[in-house]
Amino acid sequence: MIRTAYCGEITERYVGEEVTVQGWVQKRRDLGGLIFIDLRDREGIVQIVFDPKRNEEQWEIANECRGEYVLEIRGTVQKREKENPELKTGAVEIIASEIHILNRAKTTPIEITEETKVNDELRLKYRYLDLRRKPMYENLALRSKLTHSIREYMDQQGFIDIETPYMTKSTPEGARDYLVPSRVHEGHFYALPQSPQITKQLLMAAGFDRYYQIVRCFRDEDLRGDRQPEFTQVDLETSFLSAEQIQTLVEGMIQKAMRDVKGIEVTLPFPRMSYHEAMSRYGSDKPDTRFGMELIALNDVLKDIDFKVFADAIHNGGEVKAICAPQAANRYSRKDLDKIAEHLKQFGAKGLAWLKVDAEGVKGPVAKFFNEELQTSLLEATGAKEGDLLLFVADKKDVVAASLGALRLQLGEELGLIDHDAFNFLWIVDWPLLEFDEEANRYVAMHHPFTMPKAEDVELLASAPEKVHADAYDIVLNGYELGGGSLRIYQREVQEQMFTALGFTKEEAEEQFGFLLEAMDYGFPPHGGLAIGLDRFAMLLAGEDNIREVIAFPKNSKAMDVMTQAPSLVSPQQLEELALEVQTKEG
Amino acid sequence: MIRTAYCGEITERYVGEEVTVQGWVQKRRDLGGLIFIDLRDREGIVQIVFDPKRNEEQWEIANECRGEYVLEIRGTVQKREKENPELKTGAVEIIASEIHILNRAKTTPIEITEETKVNDELRLKYRYLDLRRKPMYENLALRSKLTHSIREYMDQQGFIDIETPYMTKSTPEGARDYLVPSRVHEGHFYALPQSPQITKQLLMAAGFDRYYQIVRCFRDEDLRGDRQPEFTQVDLETSFLSAEQIQTLVEGMIQKAMRDVKGIEVTLPFPRMSYHEAMSRYGSDKPDTRFGMELIALNDVLKDIDFKVFADAIHNGGEVKAICAPQAANRYSRKDLDKIAEHLKQFGAKGLAWLKVDAEGVKGPVAKFFNEELQTSLLEATGAKEGDLLLFVADKKDVVAASLGALRLQLGEELGLIDHDAFNFLWIVDWPLLEFDEEANRYVAMHHPFTMPKAEDVELLASAPEKVHADAYDIVLNGYELGGGSLRIYQREVQEQMFTALGFTKEEAEEQFGFLLEAMDYGFPPHGGLAIGLDRFAMLLAGEDNIREVIAFPKNSKAMDVMTQAPSLVSPQQLEELALEVQTKEG
Repeated sequence: MIRTAYCGEITERYVGEEVTVQGWVQKRRDLGGLIFIDLRDREGIVQIVFDPKRNEEQWEIANECRGEYVLEIRGTVQKREKENPELKTGAVEIIASEIHILNRAKTTPIEITEETKVNDELRLKYRYLDLRRKPMYENLALRSKLTHSIREYMDQQGFIDIETPYMTKSTPEGARDYLVPSRVHEGHFYALPQSPQITKQLLMAAGFDRYYQIVRCFRDEDLRGDRQPEFTQVDLETSFLSAEQIQTLVEGMIQKAMRDVKGIEVTLPFPRMSYHEAMSRYGSDKPDTRFGMELIALNDVLKDIDFKVFADAIHNGGEVKAICAPQAANRYSRKDLDKIAEHLKQFGAKGLAWLKVDAEGVKGPVAKFFNEELQTSLLEATGAKEGDLLLFVADKKDVVAASLGALRLQLGEELGLIDHDAFNFLWIVDWPLLEFDEEANRYVAMHHPFTMPKAEDVELLASAPEKVHADAYDIVLNGYELGGGSLRIYQREVQEQMFTALGFTKEEAEEQFGFLLEAMDYGFPPHGGLAIGLDRFAMLLAGEDNIREVIAFPKNSKAMDVMTQAPSLVSPQQLEELALEVQTKEG
Repeated sequence: MIRTAYCGEITERYVGEEVTVQGWVQKRRDLGGLIFIDLRDREGIVQIVFDPKRNEEQWEIANECRGEYVLEIRGTVQKREKENPELKTGAVEIIASEIHILNRAKTTPIEITEETKVNDELRLKYRYLDLRRKPMYENLALRSKLTHSIREYMDQQGFIDIETPYMTKSTPEGARDYLVPSRVHEGHFYALPQSPQITKQLLMAAGFDRYYQIVRCFRDEDLRGDRQPEFTQVDLETSFLSAEQIQTLVEGMIQKAMRDVKGIEVTLPFPRMSYHEAMSRYGSDKPDTRFGMELIALNDVLKDIDFKVFADAIHNGGEVKAICAPQAANRYSRKDLDKIAEHLKQFGAKGLAWLKVDAEGVKGPVAKFFNEELQTSLLEATGAKEGDLLLFVADKKDVVAASLGALRLQLGEELGLIDHDAFNFLWIVDWPLLEFDEEANRYVAMHHPFTMPKAEDVELLASAPEKVHADAYDIVLNGYELGGGSLRIYQREVQEQMFTALGFTKEEAEEQFGFLLEAMDYGFPPHGGLAIGLDRFAMLLAGEDNIREVIAFPKNSKAMDVMTQAPSLVSPQQLEELALEVQTKEG
């Protein structure tokens, strides 16, 4: 039998027609001798009625059906006596004339309901059941719509979709590689790519001019809520364009995607903010600009304060900053604030000072250090009003940023300052090229070793690397880094200087990246691009807070596929063919 | 400066306009004091003229340029005095007013010309230069157009693009897996997927109804011309459709692709041929139907022949078959035919008999066994005419098919019987489900262990597995297997019987595929699908004979990336983190 329409599509326009539907039993009820089956497919649910007086044999079969049985049903659509306004198909029902049980089902370990309270491990183990739930179908359909929209745009803009290898060379920069042992070349390994960065640059060297790919990337890192061992990025690269031109291209892509997927018209261009400004105003390089409550610099105001913690911070080249939480004075008890202070320790903050503003002035443990004059200038500088809560951190610059930045997000959520229907895109530009990694005791690339230093800063690469700015740009959405890009180095001398700044010897650079350096000898064009985290983009558009919700078969927090039990042991023969032995550590 | 148009787009409609172009120096000539530069980008070449009388400084820069320098040039388009009909832009030239050298180039190790005689290893080592050649750009642009066309079609047909994991579980069936050691779970391994077969079936269990993906697959096999360690397939799966409905869907996809990519209108439906008929008429399960010269069964005609080789073959349950090579009698000497016979040994053929047909009858070493009556019936059965060459193989059925099938292809090419502009699609249907693997001494799946046996044959699974036919279908193009598909098993009992037929114990089946069997308990819908080899499809559309020509960065015949030198040695630390030791075999 050939399906007439999806269950979820059987509406009033089918009344009087004979239809065939196929799907799963959502619910079976026996009411006054009639059997009602709610049949579900990916598009929705339709009600089907079996009347023993019309056809007893078919009624018997319907009577036997249980939840999640797979059925094929033919019948005639009629208007319902009592409409169900909650269903798209709620005005009609199908009077069944024929039913076939295509497959039976035991009681499922997960109920197929819109919301679920089932724990994540069980959801992952029975993912094929979890994915029957409407929100999961909708999330994955949204993701498909998103990639389709992006591909259409890239095609319209003359980009060529080129596949790059997944079995590549391991390089020491960046995160940890996943390795793939070679059977043919014993003791040698491929690496799964962390991104097709160098490959796409070589495509520019090949003259492709505009490349894109929606591509899987792999990082063997410790996992967090929004990280997976494998993730997907929208990867693009162009030749001969300026950073601004690339940003404009990407804005067009996002505008189309927002229109196609969410029906939302975003305003272009997106705001640009320098890295320095973002860190200083929001304590973050991916500021959530859906609300204010910015970090306020108070070194000037408090330069003469008698409070040793503040004075020391200022004196030692650090900062005192505050955020002003509007009308929050009565919402946070001393105990709450102690808990917050405790929480901020993970960002290095040794303490949290706070003041509540009331009609008479400021109150709180440190209020005594604020004489009237200081109170006035504090209230003026922070704009704090009666009922507001001021929270201070005094420390090294990066500690202040990290801790107040995190606190700002927490309070923004708790105080309901965030408009959850808003999509605030912005560009963070003017990044530092390098940052000093204390642990490694060397400079590391803020983005990656192929990022172009700003032309005017190239000569600082050797003398003052920390002062070099990059032609780099991140696109941020609602406090998430959606993607990052840059112009790339295309001149061999500059690339060599960059490797030197990163602590590579000439030999190491040659051994790891010799092919790239050599390519720069043969007419490498100026180029640049960007990569967008597709999982994260889809997650934000779907209103979810974990990328697992927009991935069909994600790994759990221990990088395991709970359903298939991967990774698994393999046969001794497989290891032997790869010339490998497992050396389990003791203990 | 912003590009006005690609070099290859500067035609007469730009005459009189000021344009900016960017690209690579294809050629620089000095003629009568003028410098002519042919500038190349991905769309083509345009001629640019530098006149020292107009601007000596710019002329000096142009004079310094060499092949593959990257330039940015502004100038005015004018009609050429002498048109170059070989170039799309041949009616015009650009009179340069401004030139910038964006990057310099040494002499390239590969010349950037349309045709190349450079060996494959050098082409792969300098792939970014090889890809600058026009045919390579066109191949990859064609591939991009092909995938875009397919995606559009799948979207129109309501398919959802869903990404499946690349880090999966290793299973013993099929080819050899590439493994990925886990760091978190010592001694455990992921496997790169040979195809997302089970995953897409689970998506059907999840109710997605129509899934597709253009997805990378991995097989650690010995390599051949049209094989790569990683390859790409167009993967699709549907629920509730018959095999014919799925074939019709795929035909629509191919029709659109042929129209979009080649401008060719193919006729639907494609012919269907049973596996048995294909083997019998063409000696191949992927027959090239662009020409005839079919295999002719001669057991009946020759059943009383006195030639021991033929008589024995017939007597022992084997076959005698021939192909009739039209007007080939004088094109192949006895020595040529000896060489062919030698070549056929690899297919198991112990010998090759042949007859040349002339005005008087048949000539050749075995002619003496053909009396007049036998000659008449032979010529009638084969349709051989004066000047034709008859080639016979007598042996076991599969040896006859393999050897004559290969010979047919060879002679078809040599005799010019093949129309290289034709695209002959056909479906091979009614496959056997299993074949007996002598080496493993057990049945193996002809497609894979999830292929549905024909309903009427299920009961033979236990008693006579070799007689079971499958609901499987391959799509063949010009003698290549373009793709294969089938209906899948969706009932647990049938899947268990299939595993038993394949020699799995209950425990082994449970351990490897327990999650799939369990899924069949919870309402698994009837489903089926297909996968098309994208590399091969693109190769055939591009008129190439090796898939490397349609892959940006392929591996060489030893599975190496010659450019980056992957696979490579990795650091001891990397191995230690994975608890692995390399045990190089002695010798």
